[in-house]
Amino acid sequence: MKIYDRSGFPNPSRVRIVLAEKGLDDQIEFVSVDLIGAEHKQAPFLAMNPAGKIPVLELDDGTLISETTAITEYLDNLDGRPVLTGTTPREKAVIHMMQNRAEAELMSAVDGYFHFATPGLGSAMQPYVAPEWAGRKEWGERQRDKAIRAMIYFDGVVKNQPFIAGEAFSMADITVFAALNFAEAAGIAIPGDCASLIEWRSRISNLPSVKNRSGKEFLPEDLKRFGV
Amino acid sequence: MKIYDRSGFPNPSRVRIVLAEKGLDDQIEFVSVDLIGAEHKQAPFLAMNPAGKIPVLELDDGTLISETTAITEYLDNLDGRPVLTGTTPREKAVIHMMQNRAEAELMSAVDGYFHFATPGLGSAMQPYVAPEWAGRKEWGERQRDKAIRAMIYFDGVVKNQPFIAGEAFSMADITVFAALNFAEAAGIAIPGDCASLIEWRSRISNLPSVKNRSGKEFLPEDLKRFGV
Repeated sequence: MKIYDRSGFPNPSRVRIVLAEKGLDDQIEFVSVDLIGAEHKQAPFLAMNPAGKIPVLELDDGTLISETTAITEYLDNLDGRPVLTGTTPREKAVIHMMQNRAEAELMSAVDGYFHFATPGLGSAMQPYVAPEWAGRKEWGERQRDKAIRAMIYFDGVVKNQPFIAGEAFSMADITVFAALNFAEAAGIAIPGDCASLIEWRSRISNLPSVKNRSGKEFLPEDLKRFGV
Repeated sequence: MKIYDRSGFPNPSRVRIVLAEKGLDDQIEFVSVDLIGAEHKQAPFLAMNPAGKIPVLELDDGTLISETTAITEYLDNLDGRPVLTGTTPREKAVIHMMQNRAEAELMSAVDGYFHFATPGLGSAMQPYVAPEWAGRKEWGERQRDKAIRAMIYFDGVVKNQPFIAGEAFSMADITVFAALNFAEAAGIAIPGDCASLIEWRSRISNLPSVKNRSGKEFLPEDLKRFGV
């Protein structure tokens, strides 16, 4: 299998944690995509994923799977023993609910702030993700406020249970963890009184599958190179 | 089981098609939520779903499931014979990919146009979904353009295969169908040269589980009452 992505970015980091959890690292060939140069917004990449987003998983039969949740579903079910996406109907439902909530309320909001209210990935990418218009910066700042509200919400969640979707680590934890790393890189701090979320984040960052994929790895040389 | 929603709205219509497909209609008690009065943005509803969105499924043990994809996963897997969300890892992945694409590129875009560039659900809801800011209308119009691009994309998909995720009807078809009804209600027409998508839509609207849930049912009295 091949994965087209860029090491250190939020959704690629989600897939890499899944691969580590499932022991599939050595079955993947990674192909690096030049996000700073907007390679994923050009025709050859759009033919693989019309949404113009990484990561994309290419199966050995040529099938292309994009959307991180879909890739996670595939990798988790490949051996018939899912551990990240649930087994009973109730588990599946709660995990998908919390996963969607993490993506819609936190990850997308951080992404909106990063691309609309900061220089984002720089000048080549700007026209694709955040075209000039009067309300751009204000929209981005609203997204930051939304992300902070989501952090406060998830703080309440892990005050009452060990993981985002209940008693077991799941893809919902991976999404929240990646989104918090993204938030840190984008300059959105977790509110200081979110003690449960801060403790949860520290606990997740020490899991074997996550340990070498912490926030430090995020957006490594790229952003520095562009002075962002 | 209980479902808190509002008949005729896009995501409620998705769940009702799922219920019909699974023969579960008579196991559900529906509780109507006053969307026009912004009931879903007030504390009692937010305690059920902090994202302030319908539908919410309440299981008999009190578990609350929101996010339509999660509700669909639950209902489809309840009898151990999923027919809308896939059985093999590859099927699950492709269905989730197309489902997410339909939601992100089409449903959300129509929703953005409806709430930001039109009067949306009226004055009680406006502050919650589309606060005043200089770029509001332009943002909404960009979302309409995005929705039209998605229609052209899905036209290409069903030119080459009978359903959105391949050879079988799935939750991805339900999402695209509901989004096209929403688009029609919001005033976004399918481009006339999208013949395959128009034929697909007609075919879907004639499925037994869909037949009485077509575009006609959408936003029935509410919008007329408010002169939208």
